[in-house]
Amino acid sequence: MELLKERIRRDGKYLGNGILKVDRFINHQVDPSLMDACGAEFARLFKDLPVNKILTAEISGIAPALMTGKYLNLPVVYARKTKPVTMPPTVYITVAPSHTKGNNVELIVSPEYLEKGDQVLIIDDFLASGATIAGLVRLADVAGAQVLGIGTLIEKTFEGGRALLQPLGLPIHALVSISRLDEDGIEFTDEFEN
Amino acid sequence: MELLKERIRRDGKYLGNGILKVDRFINHQVDPSLMDACGAEFARLFKDLPVNKILTAEISGIAPALMTGKYLNLPVVYARKTKPVTMPPTVYITVAPSHTKGNNVELIVSPEYLEKGDQVLIIDDFLASGATIAGLVRLADVAGAQVLGIGTLIEKTFEGGRALLQPLGLPIHALVSISRLDEDGIEFTDEFEN
Repeated sequence: MELLKERIRRDGKYLGNGILKVDRFINHQVDPSLMDACGAEFARLFKDLPVNKILTAEISGIAPALMTGKYLNLPVVYARKTKPVTMPPTVYITVAPSHTKGNNVELIVSPEYLEKGDQVLIIDDFLASGATIAGLVRLADVAGAQVLGIGTLIEKTFEGGRALLQPLGLPIHALVSISRLDEDGIEFTDEFEN
Repeated sequence: MELLKERIRRDGKYLGNGILKVDRFINHQVDPSLMDACGAEFARLFKDLPVNKILTAEISGIAPALMTGKYLNLPVVYARKTKPVTMPPTVYITVAPSHTKGNNVELIVSPEYLEKGDQVLIIDDFLASGATIAGLVRLADVAGAQVLGIGTLIEKTFEGGRALLQPLGLPIHALVSISRLDEDGIEFTDEFEN
């Protein structure tokens, strides 16, 4: 997706250790118009899947998931990282290692909003190691829901996430794929689809 | 705003201790169409303010702020509750007591995205005690930015937030105002404006 690629070229910043800073338009300051365009593109890519719900993880998955939900006219559930008082005592929970945080984060979903029979599209900001998305897939599994597709804004192809998720046999779309990221710059690659 | 009021009547749940659960359409599962309508309404209410940025707090302020930003064509900055590795070493930080969590939460903004001269509209999900919004105002102050208006989806008029914020002399709009919340039900009131 050219619009997102151009924005990463202009405002993305390499911080070392494989980390791409996109705080100016996705992760801390958000560009609603860009997120809207990304949501429209996800909706186009996944329009033929019979999904009834979008699943993402707080915090930075919320913006692209919300805009995708707007175009597909579907509710968006975001997995919480801490259990709020409004959740029932019994919840679905899994643990995913966070590459950027260097620790484990919990992903928590209430059984009220992820149920047997749900057909789910997962949307997130990054596909890197794939750990967060694999965690969301486990939550769907334990809830008896079925994941039908996975979409991410940015894939870092050199971190192995696609290989981790490929055995699921699902369509995986990244709007932008980055094959190299270092002091010399950012190298984009065409998406290699499932 | 009738649409939001109806939704609270249908799907809101009183949990005791002054807590209104809106997890089915705002806080855990989000209804993008409803948030879009709320964003349009905030844009209408605040369209005459010369703001250049929307400020909110993660997590549940993101959805209404994002939709408002889409309609006003403005970037959205959400204060983080933990400092990610992508933030610079020196940041703006304040502490706000959380009514629903019973502890203090940090609100953190990078100086990269809140600057002297910024004219800010604050959007959040709830106006209850006003502590989170007052924290966002302090962050804007310390950054040299100016807050021009405050909008919240739901005000609980019996928790004193408006009285806390009124000395700022800013327009404060709640899309829905709740004057009583107990086992007998939810009582709505007309907004009393500044």
